[in-house]
Amino acid sequence: MSKGAQTREAILDTASRLARTVGLGGLTIGTLASSAELSKSGLYAHFRSKESLQLAILEHARTRFVTEVLAPSLSTPRGEPRVRRLFESWLFWDAKEGGCLFVAASSELDDQPGPVRDFLVGVQQDWLDSLAEVFRTGVAAGHFRSDVDPEQFAFEEDGVMLSYHMSSRLLGDTLSADRARRAFDALLDRARTQ
Amino acid sequence: MSKGAQTREAILDTASRLARTVGLGGLTIGTLASSAELSKSGLYAHFRSKESLQLAILEHARTRFVTEVLAPSLSTPRGEPRVRRLFESWLFWDAKEGGCLFVAASSELDDQPGPVRDFLVGVQQDWLDSLAEVFRTGVAAGHFRSDVDPEQFAFEEDGVMLSYHMSSRLLGDTLSADRARRAFDALLDRARTQ
Repeated sequence: MSKGAQTREAILDTASRLARTVGLGGLTIGTLASSAELSKSGLYAHFRSKESLQLAILEHARTRFVTEVLAPSLSTPRGEPRVRRLFESWLFWDAKEGGCLFVAASSELDDQPGPVRDFLVGVQQDWLDSLAEVFRTGVAAGHFRSDVDPEQFAFEEDGVMLSYHMSSRLLGDTLSADRARRAFDALLDRARTQ
Repeated sequence: MSKGAQTREAILDTASRLARTVGLGGLTIGTLASSAELSKSGLYAHFRSKESLQLAILEHARTRFVTEVLAPSLSTPRGEPRVRRLFESWLFWDAKEGGCLFVAASSELDDQPGPVRDFLVGVQQDWLDSLAEVFRTGVAAGHFRSDVDPEQFAFEEDGVMLSYHMSSRLLGDTLSADRARRAFDALLDRARTQ
């Protein structure tokens, strides 16, 4: 990685952390400059506008998401173990400082048309597709019934995750993870072949 | 209602609509002044700071929420009919322009300590309590099993709602309401006495 690329990555690490706390819309080149100890003009050289900074942060978060959430599940045996691993990886991801950036950004920007919203739509669609696809490996492995709609499963699994996000991040409820796992177990029970 | 109170209500209607679109943090006294066709100084006379404006918007939204979401369920027979009515009233509420302000604001402000966040915590806790309480009327009426944990039911019902919000508002998926109802039916099936 070139020095310029390294600097860019370091800035995006800081920017992602900030964005998870103050929101993607609340992040300004000014506050980022203070946090990253860089000049505003230096930041503008990397990211020409607030919008391109937002897109770069989301791209950066997506790369981390693939590495930290999706990749571990793909190295876990297909079927129920992989379905469970993906769920647990997401809980772990969301429990980090500031929580899942995509959940926060989606609520924030769902009414603001443009490339940032388009990016978030793509991320969310890919995510639901991944949940459904990993569920399908469980059908193929004989763990889950073939008459369960994988997209419906993904919708419900995402709901459990979103409720966990709300319960743990806003309410700070210490039972959040237990409740999420109970809800997810019930979802798996309904889908199981026996 | 006095003329001053009427003006205040009219401003808060406009402000709530704006906040549902640009976010509570994205709403400035300046943009509100243009939308409400009032002077900035006029607005400052009503709301002394951005924070007190945010709190007034949330208070206003809570009053509407009680009237539009909670009240109809209380005039519906206790038990499963009331549980279903509350769920449907929420879907209808969230389908309005900009969607549920509390969902958006909660994601936006869950990492920003202060009175606005405290208010949102109270609203969310009250909401989960209401969901659990209405579920209990179904246990008392013999519709639902007494060994189902009402707080767990509320956690899962809220998850279905949050998934609906994401799916309909961000993705614009026309199947969102169908998926939410299927998920909710499955939740009721698990809780039913027979």
